Amino acid sequence: MVEAFDAVDVIKAKRDGLELSTPQIDWLVDAYTRGVVGDEQMAAWAMAVFLRGMQPREIHDLTQAMIASGERMSYGGLSKPTVDKHSTGGVGDKITLPLAPLVASFGVAVPQLSGRGLGHTGGTLDKLEAIPGWRAALTNEEFLAQLDSVGAVIAAAGSGLAPADKKLYALRDTTGTVECIPLIASSIMSKKIAEGTAALVLDVKHGSGAFLQDPELGRRLAETMVQLGKDAGVATVALQTNMQTPLGRAIGNGNEVRESAEVLAGGGPADVVELTLALAREMLALAGQPDADVEGHLKGGQAMDAWRRMIAAQDGDPDAPLPAAPESETVVAPRSGVLVAQPALPYGIAAWRLGAGRARKEDPVSHSAGIDLHVKIGETVTKGQPLFTMRTEDAARFPRALEALEGAWTIGDPGTPVEDGGPLVRARIA
Amino acid sequence: MVEAFDAVDVIKAKRDGLELSTPQIDWLVDAYTRGVVGDEQMAAWAMAVFLRGMQPREIHDLTQAMIASGERMSYGGLSKPTVDKHSTGGVGDKITLPLAPLVASFGVAVPQLSGRGLGHTGGTLDKLEAIPGWRAALTNEEFLAQLDSVGAVIAAAGSGLAPADKKLYALRDTTGTVECIPLIASSIMSKKIAEGTAALVLDVKHGSGAFLQDPELGRRLAETMVQLGKDAGVATVALQTNMQTPLGRAIGNGNEVRESAEVLAGGGPADVVELTLALAREMLALAGQPDADVEGHLKGGQAMDAWRRMIAAQDGDPDAPLPAAPESETVVAPRSGVLVAQPALPYGIAAWRLGAGRARKEDPVSHSAGIDLHVKIGETVTKGQPLFTMRTEDAARFPRALEALEGAWTIGDPGTPVEDGGPLVRARIA
Repeated sequence: MVEAFDAVDVIKAKRDGLELSTPQIDWLVDAYTRGVVGDEQMAAWAMAVFLRGMQPREIHDLTQAMIASGERMSYGGLSKPTVDKHSTGGVGDKITLPLAPLVASFGVAVPQLSGRGLGHTGGTLDKLEAIPGWRAALTNEEFLAQLDSVGAVIAAAGSGLAPADKKLYALRDTTGTVECIPLIASSIMSKKIAEGTAALVLDVKHGSGAFLQDPELGRRLAETMVQLGKDAGVATVALQTNMQTPLGRAIGNGNEVRESAEVLAGGGPADVVELTLALAREMLALAGQPDADVEGHLKGGQAMDAWRRMIAAQDGDPDAPLPAAPESETVVAPRSGVLVAQPALPYGIAAWRLGAGRARKEDPVSHSAGIDLHVKIGETVTKGQPLFTMRTEDAARFPRALEALEGAWTIGDPGTPVEDGGPLVRARIA
Repeated sequence: MVEAFDAVDVIKAKRDGLELSTPQIDWLVDAYTRGVVGDEQMAAWAMAVFLRGMQPREIHDLTQAMIASGERMSYGGLSKPTVDKHSTGGVGDKITLPLAPLVASFGVAVPQLSGRGLGHTGGTLDKLEAIPGWRAALTNEEFLAQLDSVGAVIAAAGSGLAPADKKLYALRDTTGTVECIPLIASSIMSKKIAEGTAALVLDVKHGSGAFLQDPELGRRLAETMVQLGKDAGVATVALQTNMQTPLGRAIGNGNEVRESAEVLAGGGPADVVELTLALAREMLALAGQPDADVEGHLKGGQAMDAWRRMIAAQDGDPDAPLPAAPESETVVAPRSGVLVAQPALPYGIAAWRLGAGRARKEDPVSHSAGIDLHVKIGETVTKGQPLFTMRTEDAARFPRALEALEGAWTIGDPGTPVEDGGPLVRARIA
């Protein structure tokens, strides 16, 4: 039983810029989870946090209180080291798909509890569900057994982990309190710590397709999360990466699975390969294998083998054809030159509008809808050459998708500076 | 039909310190009234307004949008000028009771739509309901007929006036967004303008018993409200007054009616008389009688006649005995000296705890509970002399009332500075 406070007093204290005490934060999170503090009170508090900020100690307490609101998993009985990965999300971000089996192919356990997409960023589970037969829901026993045998598991997070975070996350989405570092950091880290991993690599994105556009904010978020991980005894490293343009050439669900399989087969787009390797190296270093030949396991087929075992263990058929969309429309280059701008956000919104994403969490997604980029930023184009192809189950969706894509590509003369946001991996925070 | 916006966009704009457009404010208030914008969204918005503020144009638009959410009264058919009065509330503030009949005795209509108390400040209707038979609920026809015949009416505000304000006001109470000038000013003025008065005198309080303690904030609130009134074509004047110590000697319901009757009979505490006369002069000046002999109508019985007619018109018996509390407890001076501090807030809270106020709007109030001050600030006391008497229907309430009164009086040596907060009327804003 935690000490009782008055909700209005706690809201006012944060509103007036005061630091909340540990018992106040414990009480607030517990009372909100039990419904004693109402959504309208928590929304006012979240806005006060947004505008007044939180001290590191408060963020730590908030994270711990959200963990304490639910159950906590443990991989203590496992014979292998565990390493988890989390990305703050972006357009075309399918990295978890090749990454988890790649790391698992070195005998490391990768317990990947994922979510579904909302808005313009896709969800890992939505992508994998494009594979016929594959199921996201596993029992705890199935999850642990697969972790032990295959090493890699990507599954739906149970509702028992950090329920306070789930409730607050949904509330923030409708109350304009999403882009707030204390609330983002505690949300992500409460889930990851409750999941019980021993080590964690974070992919913190900035740029057009990320929800924090400013690299400086991305850096602060990464630093905050790394500190929270360390405080909780989880070895944590963050890569700060560039999400100015889409990752890879596929944006959608089924097409992102296809592209992931290309990477696992030793090919695939250079940026997807680069980020997969960089994150795999960090994860394996935390698991005690700093010199693992990650590129070799992509070229040599070990990662692909792990992928096939992982998909099959969850009743998916890795050889089944992926769903194909009946409708497609291709946009061609209006002039010759170099593609100098290709901001990620419009492509994310367009793929969402084509059916690959959802507006409300109850909505279904299309596994065949999406966009395939034929030209990536920095590449040369000739007038009339296909730039990208949109695919959907419903041709009526094309006009609004095209509307979103207005200004989503710029063809310049050779020598025009390319707005790619700089290197893919900007910084490492440990 | 107003233009449609996205609630999250409007919240974010205010969160980021932007000025909201007139259509945005119109839409928000309308959508909130219809339930399209949820309480949690409006709470986040209110906190953003609290911390980011509003430009005068936005406050004007918010006021107009709240007026437009409901019906609007009109006294156009009346033969007399109308003048209304509003006080921001304080401890022992019974001024409306003598003031309305006093002003009406000069042939001016005083339409006083009032509320009930919540927390430590009493409600005018709660006080008048101590009079046997008196009823607060009048039909529109009864209200207008009494305004024409008696001149003074104090009645319950119908639910049709500014419903958006009612909803937002209740929300602010539970979300820590009360003490915010744009929200206070628009709340008060939307109701007052919707009530249709031609002129308005505001009593804006500061100090211990007021909800804005800082005189500077009181001044800004007064200036904001005067401007809103003028913008809406209502001749508006504000007096900024001192609520550092309780007004008069009676704090409660029935005892405040008794004290009001003393003032109407030409007697009563000096501070209650002074404020009643100051506000009456302002109201009569706005009604075209700047030289009215207000003191004469208290001494001469004309105000008392109007009071008796006003009470009787609403089925009250002005001669019936007021309810007496069965339990009382008197606190005496622990030493001799001068009463140098008597902050209002503890007395307001204690009277509330004795039963005179309510914690939730559904609660009943006791008409006999309250506090009678035998000594006011600045007066000399002898050790053992009664300082005040608490009255209640339930003796079990005394301990918590006494707890609230800890530090509520200081007896000093003669010559010690008296903490009375300065003159009763601090400024006039027109």
